[in-house]
Amino acid sequence: MDNNEDKRYTSDEELTNLALSRGIFFHTSEIGSDNISGFWEYGPVGFRIFNNLLTQWRKLVNSMNGVEISGSVVLPKKVLQASGHEDNFFDMEIACVKCGSVYRVDKLLEEKENSRSFEGLSEGEYLNYIKEYGIKCAKCGGELGEIKKFGTMFPLKIGEDVQGYLRPEACQSIFLDFKRVFDTSGRKFPLVIAQVGKAFRNEISPRNNLIRQREFYQNDIEIFFVEDNFELKEDYTVQIYDKEKNNTMNVNISAALSDGTIKNKVTAYALSKIYGFLLSIGFDKDVIRFRKLYEDKAFYAEESFDLEIKKGDSWVELVACNHRGIHDLSSYEKYGAKGMNIDSNIPKVFELSMGTDRLFYLLLLVSMKKDSERRWLSLDSKISPFKYAIFPLVSKDGVDSKASEIFENSVYRDDILYSDSGSIGKRYRKAEEIGVRLAFTVDYESLENETVTIRESDSMKQFRISINYIDIITKEFESNSFDQLKNKYEYH
Amino acid sequence: MDNNEDKRYTSDEELTNLALSRGIFFHTSEIGSDNISGFWEYGPVGFRIFNNLLTQWRKLVNSMNGVEISGSVVLPKKVLQASGHEDNFFDMEIACVKCGSVYRVDKLLEEKENSRSFEGLSEGEYLNYIKEYGIKCAKCGGELGEIKKFGTMFPLKIGEDVQGYLRPEACQSIFLDFKRVFDTSGRKFPLVIAQVGKAFRNEISPRNNLIRQREFYQNDIEIFFVEDNFELKEDYTVQIYDKEKNNTMNVNISAALSDGTIKNKVTAYALSKIYGFLLSIGFDKDVIRFRKLYEDKAFYAEESFDLEIKKGDSWVELVACNHRGIHDLSSYEKYGAKGMNIDSNIPKVFELSMGTDRLFYLLLLVSMKKDSERRWLSLDSKISPFKYAIFPLVSKDGVDSKASEIFENSVYRDDILYSDSGSIGKRYRKAEEIGVRLAFTVDYESLENETVTIRESDSMKQFRISINYIDIITKEFESNSFDQLKNKYEYH
Repeated sequence: MDNNEDKRYTSDEELTNLALSRGIFFHTSEIGSDNISGFWEYGPVGFRIFNNLLTQWRKLVNSMNGVEISGSVVLPKKVLQASGHEDNFFDMEIACVKCGSVYRVDKLLEEKENSRSFEGLSEGEYLNYIKEYGIKCAKCGGELGEIKKFGTMFPLKIGEDVQGYLRPEACQSIFLDFKRVFDTSGRKFPLVIAQVGKAFRNEISPRNNLIRQREFYQNDIEIFFVEDNFELKEDYTVQIYDKEKNNTMNVNISAALSDGTIKNKVTAYALSKIYGFLLSIGFDKDVIRFRKLYEDKAFYAEESFDLEIKKGDSWVELVACNHRGIHDLSSYEKYGAKGMNIDSNIPKVFELSMGTDRLFYLLLLVSMKKDSERRWLSLDSKISPFKYAIFPLVSKDGVDSKASEIFENSVYRDDILYSDSGSIGKRYRKAEEIGVRLAFTVDYESLENETVTIRESDSMKQFRISINYIDIITKEFESNSFDQLKNKYEYH
Repeated sequence: MDNNEDKRYTSDEELTNLALSRGIFFHTSEIGSDNISGFWEYGPVGFRIFNNLLTQWRKLVNSMNGVEISGSVVLPKKVLQASGHEDNFFDMEIACVKCGSVYRVDKLLEEKENSRSFEGLSEGEYLNYIKEYGIKCAKCGGELGEIKKFGTMFPLKIGEDVQGYLRPEACQSIFLDFKRVFDTSGRKFPLVIAQVGKAFRNEISPRNNLIRQREFYQNDIEIFFVEDNFELKEDYTVQIYDKEKNNTMNVNISAALSDGTIKNKVTAYALSKIYGFLLSIGFDKDVIRFRKLYEDKAFYAEESFDLEIKKGDSWVELVACNHRGIHDLSSYEKYGAKGMNIDSNIPKVFELSMGTDRLFYLLLLVSMKKDSERRWLSLDSKISPFKYAIFPLVSKDGVDSKASEIFENSVYRDDILYSDSGSIGKRYRKAEEIGVRLAFTVDYESLENETVTIRESDSMKQFRISINYIDIITKEFESNSFDQLKNKYEYH
């Protein structure tokens, strides 16, 4: 790897170290020895970034003329029976007969043969592979024994006797609420319903920090439609990876639709929407690809792509893009949900389902930069946890009160990092490490001529501007380069 | 009750009817006969209002110089042992020996003697009261039998063998994360940490719609401090209800602090903050009171008030305002949490803990108005689900495209209700029923002279303005009356 590669692909360890030292994210429940793996929390800085991501995602939903709901995370058994989760949501485990260590069978096999998926095979097929590859216990070398099923939903009892589960996905509420939303929103098809919320899976071995958790946020967009007459208003050249043909194409979405690589108009529409969203929040084109699914897609899906993000030398699934047909609404209808058909048509559904924590984590991974001197997060202004930082050079002689005054009067009052303790150099480093793009320093000269120094984190370039321009320049920085702003606003 | 009273105190039934017909909130999981009580969802309109409430609450947190985190809802057993919940979080149930109906004992007793609380008594005390009051089964008249404990936390198993619970309150994460936030935020005391998120209680009999749910949102503000040197910057005349003295005082918070009704400066500070917040989002002074707690406060609390909202002829707890002393941090420290003391001091904590759904529900209850002709929600502009509505009078002749153009170009693009179907009268009604304060109607005259009709929902008054002023007048409406705007902006 050359230096550029080094800079882009931060390691999980480097990011986690930064996150811990700056309160971005950390383990849940750090009490005694009872830490439980697979649970993470967002600290003050992380949660600001997380909320900015949601704000941008809501703009995406709005651009699709969508509405947002918020449903319960506890659901009765019947919902998860109707959805098929109760029958299908489990992992196959295998235990060492000697030391008792437990492994997830498909992951054991994937470690042996990285390029294929071993999900969803039968018990017998798994045992054959275990034998074929000669897999033993990684801890003690003992034989691996029988395979058993391990349910990955969390069951719980509601009241004294009603069986329920924590939802394993956020989408169930959307399907069940579809009729209510359709009737009360006064909208026609396509009807886009979105939701962000927690979902829960009792993973055997949670890992990779925020990538595979037991409790996680998910943000879903479900497009309900009867006729597939979607128009492609935004076209992009995207990477489509086709495992069956073992090639990666760089192709316009419209061209992929024409040549049949993408089958449905709704798919082309949805892929362009989610792709545009990821570009807008700071992912580069070359770290995004669509993986076309074949036999590895869900049995009911008419067409599926996984949007994947490059992480080091592998690709991680970020968004499931599934044409689900009438599967969900008709299943729920069979189980007694009313009004799932409109004018005798059961609407079809296209889903864009994303792990919100994955989005957060992968964006930070590709945004973390380092050189010999420092490390920093290069986040888009829209995602940065603060619009800007204000630092009084010293905490005396009126310099601090001038800085406070600017802070209090800013239109961005609630989105400014104000800090007056420690050396100015350390304050710059801290702001850079949490992704604040601009810092304004108030000094003695500010008291004389009403100017401050503006400094860009990425380049560490700086110049002086009039105090009056602080909010304006912050706004313009979203669509202009720092050098352009210098030409326009530098104080002489 | 006179007519004014009628208008203010909407019944639960009236609000629920409105909510169902307009997609504001509704039951979770309406599938077959398996609906489970105590679970509700927010529809598109409700969730917009809900999010606006959170935005205002975040401004409150900011005004306290606070930070916000997001923690897990699944917590290991040890955390709930340390917090005391495992030993204390249960209800006493009593069952009919004849028909098996189950009742919550304290609620049965409260129904007999409404003015006192029966929470937290011993089994023997409860049985004596049941006997004394001669309470029988409400359903069959049978004798009530033995009392048993019913744990109100939801237990679940993490991985294969770790015992955990869904958190019964949102505050535990804040206490456990205190040290990380203190160390990484670079802030000094007082340190204010806030969180909003779901909490869960397995209520025996959930009721009153969003008031007592099994799954609910809670928003907490915890003020960590070492020295109580808080200043009262905002003073208010508030109602303080003192059950022990059986009187309600109208008193300045500062005066209550001077005469010892309020003991601690931090309490006076926190009460003024939460009171100002409730006024700012639309609660009237006369529906808010602070109930001073005595023997009914938690054993560890140094000082407690319940902020209550008038609902019909009773008062409902909305915010627990508790001076918790060093109870929480020292408990967690005993159980092995590290760094709970700073410079050998365990910080004290003052808590403002609110049920977010209650806030939402009670605000809607006091905001719903009706007269012989219509019903409407009179919400503050900051809380209204949309900044304004745009209605083309007809969907032809360019009137509709003019309306679309205004919609697309508005600075409030993502916060506008646009509707072109149905009669204009029905569209006005719908906007009024979901709390949209202003509607702009585009008609043939708009095409000639670039003006539209502006209409206020509360008064149904209207006048014409230039299209250029739509966004400006919307902004100014937050602090000006409709008549003031008419004087300033009416088109002649």
